[in-house]
Amino acid sequence: MASSTVDQSQVARNGLREKVLTLNSMNPRVRRVEYAVRGPIVQRALELEQELRQGVKKPFTEVIRANIGDAQAMGQRPITFLRQVLALCVNPDLLNSPNFPDDAKKRAERILQACGGHSLGAYSISSGIQLIREDVAQYIERRDGGIPADPNNVFLSTGASDAIVTVLKLLVAGEGHTRTGVLIPIPQYPLYSATLAELGAVQVDYYLEEERAWALDVAELHRALCQARDHCCPRALCVINPGNPTGQVQTRECIEDVIRFAFQERLFLLADEVYQDNVYSAGSQFHSFKKVLMEMGPPYAVQQELASFHSTSKGYMGECGFRGGYVEVVNMDPAVQQQMLKLMSVRLCPPVPGQALLDLVVSPPAPTDPSFMQFQAERQAVLAELAAKARLTEQVFSEAPGISCNPVQGAMYSFPRIQLPPRAVQLAQELGLAPDMFFCLCLLEETGICVVPGSGFGQREGTYHFRMTILPPLEKLRLLLEKLTRFHAKFTLEYS
Amino acid sequence: MASSTVDQSQVARNGLREKVLTLNSMNPRVRRVEYAVRGPIVQRALELEQELRQGVKKPFTEVIRANIGDAQAMGQRPITFLRQVLALCVNPDLLNSPNFPDDAKKRAERILQACGGHSLGAYSISSGIQLIREDVAQYIERRDGGIPADPNNVFLSTGASDAIVTVLKLLVAGEGHTRTGVLIPIPQYPLYSATLAELGAVQVDYYLEEERAWALDVAELHRALCQARDHCCPRALCVINPGNPTGQVQTRECIEDVIRFAFQERLFLLADEVYQDNVYSAGSQFHSFKKVLMEMGPPYAVQQELASFHSTSKGYMGECGFRGGYVEVVNMDPAVQQQMLKLMSVRLCPPVPGQALLDLVVSPPAPTDPSFMQFQAERQAVLAELAAKARLTEQVFSEAPGISCNPVQGAMYSFPRIQLPPRAVQLAQELGLAPDMFFCLCLLEETGICVVPGSGFGQREGTYHFRMTILPPLEKLRLLLEKLTRFHAKFTLEYS
Repeated sequence: MASSTVDQSQVARNGLREKVLTLNSMNPRVRRVEYAVRGPIVQRALELEQELRQGVKKPFTEVIRANIGDAQAMGQRPITFLRQVLALCVNPDLLNSPNFPDDAKKRAERILQACGGHSLGAYSISSGIQLIREDVAQYIERRDGGIPADPNNVFLSTGASDAIVTVLKLLVAGEGHTRTGVLIPIPQYPLYSATLAELGAVQVDYYLEEERAWALDVAELHRALCQARDHCCPRALCVINPGNPTGQVQTRECIEDVIRFAFQERLFLLADEVYQDNVYSAGSQFHSFKKVLMEMGPPYAVQQELASFHSTSKGYMGECGFRGGYVEVVNMDPAVQQQMLKLMSVRLCPPVPGQALLDLVVSPPAPTDPSFMQFQAERQAVLAELAAKARLTEQVFSEAPGISCNPVQGAMYSFPRIQLPPRAVQLAQELGLAPDMFFCLCLLEETGICVVPGSGFGQREGTYHFRMTILPPLEKLRLLLEKLTRFHAKFTLEYS
Repeated sequence: MASSTVDQSQVARNGLREKVLTLNSMNPRVRRVEYAVRGPIVQRALELEQELRQGVKKPFTEVIRANIGDAQAMGQRPITFLRQVLALCVNPDLLNSPNFPDDAKKRAERILQACGGHSLGAYSISSGIQLIREDVAQYIERRDGGIPADPNNVFLSTGASDAIVTVLKLLVAGEGHTRTGVLIPIPQYPLYSATLAELGAVQVDYYLEEERAWALDVAELHRALCQARDHCCPRALCVINPGNPTGQVQTRECIEDVIRFAFQERLFLLADEVYQDNVYSAGSQFHSFKKVLMEMGPPYAVQQELASFHSTSKGYMGECGFRGGYVEVVNMDPAVQQQMLKLMSVRLCPPVPGQALLDLVVSPPAPTDPSFMQFQAERQAVLAELAAKARLTEQVFSEAPGISCNPVQGAMYSFPRIQLPPRAVQLAQELGLAPDMFFCLCLLEETGICVVPGSGFGQREGTYHFRMTILPPLEKLRLLLEKLTRFHAKFTLEYS
């Protein structure tokens, strides 16, 4: 082969030619993807941790990662029963050990019976182990007061993210003015914006009402939809309930309004309900979109297309590392459902340990089981502590001048609004940073507290926020909140 | 909201209007995806299993799934050490148990120390746990005779598939004549064709030489590339070594030729090396692309871009369900590497149990460790049995009239060529089926043996093949091979 096929003009002065794959030549859609939850601020937090380890002096002794809903990383202990059953599944020799309760052994045997070769090491079918999908369907039925759920409409996934991306993929079509538009809340969890960017779909923003505790207003949905119809073809509506990053829990009336709107406007509904077990406010209650839809009766119940997502990463268990999740689809065209299964089959199957964990989450010990008491106590302790942390966060922020904060009704985040002095805004702009990014970076450098700027989630022009998790242990959280509000006061003074 | 916004023309005669998401309106790229390894033939196998369970009489008593490389589903037992350490990681209470060897406990403690909150339940950083990436890098160095590997170039993934899709995603750009083309072998593993279809990239086929034991010929690469340049912009070359579905192991000379070709033609190299531990033929040896590339020296060693993929699903361990894997990138533009990390971060992290498993696979017990003897014995037993099965398969097929079969030098599949009588070919065409699909369906219905038609992997026009795994236990495999060759003889007679 003649080496003359190498284009000599591409040989740079240092003797190396240009790479095949560069920022200029790579997938432009991937380049446009942004994901603030693990963005530059978290990179900097990693560097700071490394510097601390190397003995570099800092005004703090540890980095506190309040940027991501990662309960166990913050010290939450795994639920004993879940880990007992999983260990038995992983190493079935333990089934002979006297140190495991009988119900844990029975559950492990039941799961292993349903696995290929009775092992977590075999692939499952692409939609997930049949038995587990049946257990998920039963969980949904119980949750929804007896409204039937069909295991054939349940697809297990690698965390909820995987399933959300899969459903969005199905929806993307058209070019130019006919390109699929997807309505997402602002503020949003940036998986949505990132995925839409990667798929080349049009992101259609609808704003949640901060003044009404981040309520979803159908008039705003209307506005967003009408404007979007000028330049794209809106075909889907995403709702996050309980809200991430905003922590609101939607009322039943609101959900009904959203369903009527989606039906009338012919929008496929995506309901991100991964925080369904994380509801803290006395007046709040989780209503699933599926249940409300079904109770509204025809035409909604028999026609409105819905995908509802859940995960093992949140709730009381916080098992993020296992990447378990599922989607239930409702009223989906059976031919499309086949296409979804085909698409999933290319990746073979979701991680089987995560599937097993999901099974335990959707069918926890019954009151007559030996593990029930301990399980229940551990579960309640986690949820009670989360509720206390939600109240504490709300209370501290509501008393801090220049910070205002809606109640954390659910999920595991606070998304306070912060006032930033004009000089700080100006300086940030000069540095090419969003003003709240500038604030969060300063906060990190001075206090070691890592939170995510509101600009990473979206917010009304001219408003500034940050998202922080309520996950640090209570006393640590109290210190963190004090440090944070003190820093904000100092920052305000400094740039006023 | 006025219900008049519902378009009445869309209300079908049955009172239901058209769905928002239909075969016509869905993502056309997803519709074009095909994945034969879990295609219609496997759906039919599932149905047959269900019929058998319901007591329906069949000419066989069980369905044998030789369609997918799923060792543990075929009865292979997990390696004891791997599962011991994993169980300890899942349930650290077991660290106090006297029933686990010391080295297993030390390994579990070491992994847990590297996890967020010392738990498999925390997210890891998106590229995977630092310690494990370091262990992977050391594994690569040992494998490649000391050639350095940088942990920062190692990214853990959800099985190898996930990493392959990620790298392909980065490469896709352009429109029309400038659209990215990717060269893939024919026959190929259909993850490649499926992913390229989904991404809208151009699949550029190069044919392996069946007559030379499925060797890769650079002249054929050249032909494929030149033709492709008429209608797209070829930017990447995929190589599967050892071959799937074809089982060949590439010679060092061949790999050098491929690297020179890729360099001269400015192609990013993707080396799918998930079967690197599965080499059986006496004359065959696995050479990693990384090692050969580095040993070729400049300009290749310092400029040729390469991504090499590995997995916990194959090898001697066959831990498919855990979805562990990694990619090592070589000479990748650092800015692009940052973009890859960003893209991975949207999905948060690969499953942490799969990461832990990968750690054990890349750093197995050392000769001085208590678990070494048993580990080594189990590992050798699996590999020896696989080698025996490879020989048996080759031998039976080579003696069967109308079937010809290259040696299974590596991987875990045989891809024999079958002669099909003209009447069968004609009948298949009348039924709208690929002739080898017709053969495989008939085989399944009559014998319960599930294999995948060659048409699902690609093959030269007018030739017919199927892929079957060599994974069933030896005696079962012998029976299967006899049944299969007998069926082929009968089928030939019937349609002659």
